[in-house]
Amino acid sequence: MDGSPSSLDLEWIEGGGLDSPLGFRAGGIYTGVKTYGDEPRLDLGLMATDGPCTVAGMFTQNQVVGDAVLWDRAVVASGSPVRALICNSGCSNVLNGEQGARDTRRMAELVAERLGVAPEEVLIGSTGVIGRPLPMPLIERGIADVDLRPDGGFAFARAIMTTDTHPKHAAVRFTCDGRTYTIGGCIKGSGMIHPDMATMFGFLTTDAPAERDWLQATLREVVGRTFNMVDIDMDTSTSDTALLFASGAAGGEPVTDGHPAAASLHEAIEVVARYLARELARDGEGAQTLIEVVAEGAASLEDARRAARTVASSPLVKTMIVGRDPNWGRVMMAAGRSGARFDQHAASVWVGEHQVLDRGTPTSVDLALVSQAMGTPEVQLRVHLGAGEATATAWGCDLTEGYVRINADYTT
Amino acid sequence: MDGSPSSLDLEWIEGGGLDSPLGFRAGGIYTGVKTYGDEPRLDLGLMATDGPCTVAGMFTQNQVVGDAVLWDRAVVASGSPVRALICNSGCSNVLNGEQGARDTRRMAELVAERLGVAPEEVLIGSTGVIGRPLPMPLIERGIADVDLRPDGGFAFARAIMTTDTHPKHAAVRFTCDGRTYTIGGCIKGSGMIHPDMATMFGFLTTDAPAERDWLQATLREVVGRTFNMVDIDMDTSTSDTALLFASGAAGGEPVTDGHPAAASLHEAIEVVARYLARELARDGEGAQTLIEVVAEGAASLEDARRAARTVASSPLVKTMIVGRDPNWGRVMMAAGRSGARFDQHAASVWVGEHQVLDRGTPTSVDLALVSQAMGTPEVQLRVHLGAGEATATAWGCDLTEGYVRINADYTT
Repeated sequence: MDGSPSSLDLEWIEGGGLDSPLGFRAGGIYTGVKTYGDEPRLDLGLMATDGPCTVAGMFTQNQVVGDAVLWDRAVVASGSPVRALICNSGCSNVLNGEQGARDTRRMAELVAERLGVAPEEVLIGSTGVIGRPLPMPLIERGIADVDLRPDGGFAFARAIMTTDTHPKHAAVRFTCDGRTYTIGGCIKGSGMIHPDMATMFGFLTTDAPAERDWLQATLREVVGRTFNMVDIDMDTSTSDTALLFASGAAGGEPVTDGHPAAASLHEAIEVVARYLARELARDGEGAQTLIEVVAEGAASLEDARRAARTVASSPLVKTMIVGRDPNWGRVMMAAGRSGARFDQHAASVWVGEHQVLDRGTPTSVDLALVSQAMGTPEVQLRVHLGAGEATATAWGCDLTEGYVRINADYTT
Repeated sequence: MDGSPSSLDLEWIEGGGLDSPLGFRAGGIYTGVKTYGDEPRLDLGLMATDGPCTVAGMFTQNQVVGDAVLWDRAVVASGSPVRALICNSGCSNVLNGEQGARDTRRMAELVAERLGVAPEEVLIGSTGVIGRPLPMPLIERGIADVDLRPDGGFAFARAIMTTDTHPKHAAVRFTCDGRTYTIGGCIKGSGMIHPDMATMFGFLTTDAPAERDWLQATLREVVGRTFNMVDIDMDTSTSDTALLFASGAAGGEPVTDGHPAAASLHEAIEVVARYLARELARDGEGAQTLIEVVAEGAASLEDARRAARTVASSPLVKTMIVGRDPNWGRVMMAAGRSGARFDQHAASVWVGEHQVLDRGTPTSVDLALVSQAMGTPEVQLRVHLGAGEATATAWGCDLTEGYVRINADYTT
C-alpha cells in the first residue's frame, strides 16, 4: 500500500464530487451569511444520505474550537450512523458563548425536521469569521429552501468556500470482484491552513459499505499523508474538519481488514484525498505556485514529515519561490529548524531537477537554471537528509503580496 | 528582580552602544561583500577589547549552523577570556563544505595577527546568504583596514545590518556603592527571526567585572525574556548569536551572586536587551507596526511564553494588524494552537484598551474603536488564559506586502 495512483486501475469521473457515489444528494444556496460586496455567493450546503451512513471523522487540534466541531466530535464518537451534513460559510460560530452551542444544536434540529431524522444524525460545519453569532433567520430559511439533488455536489462544494477562488472536488471509481465502488470528495481552504491531525473542511464519500473502525483507521492514515501535509500559513483553524461517509449503496459485505476490496478502497480514498490536498495548496490565498516538498533519507517517518512540512510552510522558502530567487539555503534553514535529526554535512538539496547541495557542499549548478526551474506552476523541492530511509511529501504555496491583501481586510 | 525598567536608577546614554562601556573599541568598513545595487554599505565590523574579557554566549538551535557559530560555541565553551569580535554581513558562510571551516578559521587568524592575540580569543559572526563562499580577499583587506575607535560602535552596528533599515544600539549606566557600571549593545535583524534559545546578532558589553558562570546564567535568563520573545517570521536563522562581554574596566570585585551590584547589573543588562528586542521587532522586514503581545493567566511560564510568541508570530494576526481589521478571533485561534493549556470559556482578549472577549463571550465593544486602536505605531494585544498566574510578553510586527517584496529578491 504505497498510495501511488498507478498501482490501481482507477477511473476518474469528470466533474465528479461527493455526490458521485450512490446514496448521496446535495445542494447549495445563497442565504446572505457570506457577503463579499454585492455579489451573492452560495453560503449554505446540505448533503443528505438516502439511508443510514457509517462515518469517520477527524478534527482540529486547536484548543479553541467551534461549536460545530464539538457537536461533530460527539456524533462521530457515538459510532451511530448519520444521515446528513449541513455546512455554512461566512461565520464559523466560534467563541460565541452559550449562544454558539444553542445555534449549533438548532441547525441540527432544523435539518433533522426537514429530513425526518434525529438531530444526532446530522453533522455540522461552520467556517468563516470567529466571534460573530450565526444569523439564524438566514440559516433557517436556507435549510428550508436548499434544493437537494443527486448532482448537487458542485453547488455544495461552492457553498463551503471562504477565500477559495474556485470549488475543489473529485471522484474516482474502481471495480473489485465485479462490484463497482465510487469515492468522491470536496475540500475548501484556503488560509489558516496548518492542519494538525485533521484539516480545513475535507469531505469524502463512498458507496462502499464499511465497518466503522476500519473507516476511522483509514481516514486517520489518509489524512496523515494528505490533508495534514498541506500548509498555507502555519495557522491552524478552529474549525478543521475531515469527514468520510460510507453509504453502503454499492452493496456487498462491509469492508474491513481482509475484505478483498479493502486495499483498493483505501488506496482510492487516498488518491482522491491527495488530489484534493494538492488542489487546496494550489488555491492557497494569493498563491501562484504549488510547492511540493519531498523529504527523503530521514531517520523516521515523523522526522520526514516534520522536515517536509517545515520547508513547505517557511515564509522565506515561499517568498524565495515568488521571486524565483535561487536562495536554496533557505530550504536547509527550514529543514534545520524542523526538529528532524540529521547532519548538515550529509544533506543534499534539489530544486526541480537541479541539485544545488551535495552532502553539505554547494554544487556548481548554474543558478540561472535554478531560478528558471522556480518559474513553473508547480515547483518541487527535494531534500535528502542522509539520516535514514523515511520519506514524506508536503504541499504548500508561495507567499505573495496577494496573501497579505486578502488577509488584511478579511472581515471589513 | 522583575525586569521592570523603573525599579533601578538607570541613566540612558544618548547615542550609546557597545562602545559605551570602558575597555572596548570598534569600527566598521565597506569591503564589497554586501552589495545592494551600487550603494556601498558597511559590511565588516570589528570590536576589540583593551584586555582579556569574560564572555557568555548563546546560539541558534537550528541543526544547520554556520561555521562561525561552530567556532564561537567552542570559544565560549572553553571558558577562556576573549579579545575581539569580527562580523561580516552579506554572506553567512553556511553550508560551504570544508572551505567554510577554513575561511572561518582564517578570519580569526587575520584578526589575531592584527591585534597580537590568539585566534582562539577571537569570536566571529557571519550573516547573509547561505551557501556562497566568503570572498576572502575582500574580508582580508577589510580586517587590515578597519579603523578601531573608542566611539566606533555606531559603525560596527551599521556593518552587521542585512535588511535592517537602520542600526539599533543602546547603552545605560548606573552607580552602585560609588562605582559606575555601563552596559551597551547593538542588535541586527530583521527577517528569519524566530529565535530558539538565542537570536539574530545581539551583542552586549559591560565594563563590570563578572564571574563567567554568573555572566552565562544572566545571559540565558535575559535572552529568554527578550531576544527569544521576538518573532518576525517563524524562521530560525542558522547564524543566531547572542554574546555578552564583560571587560572589567570599571574595576572592583567580579560580580557574581551576592555581589552588591549583581541584581542591578542583571536588570540593566535586561533593560538594554529588552530595548534592543523591541527595536528589532519594530524594524522587522516591511514592518509598519510593533505588536506587543502579553499572555497572562497562564498555567506555567512555558505556556505563557508559547501563547505570547504564537500570537505575535501568527501570519493571520499580523495581517489583521496591517488591515486594522478587528478580527480578534485570530488572537484566540493562535493562542489555541500554541500548545498552552486553557479553557476557551475562561479566556479574555483585549486589543489595546478595548476588551473584545470576556471569558469566552464577545463583548459589545464598538469594533470601529478596536480598528482605530490598531492604527497606532505600537499595538498591544493581551490575552488572559484564565488558567493560572504566569505572564510573558512577546514582540512581533505586522506582515506587509513589503515583507514579501524584500524576501522575493534577496539574493538577486
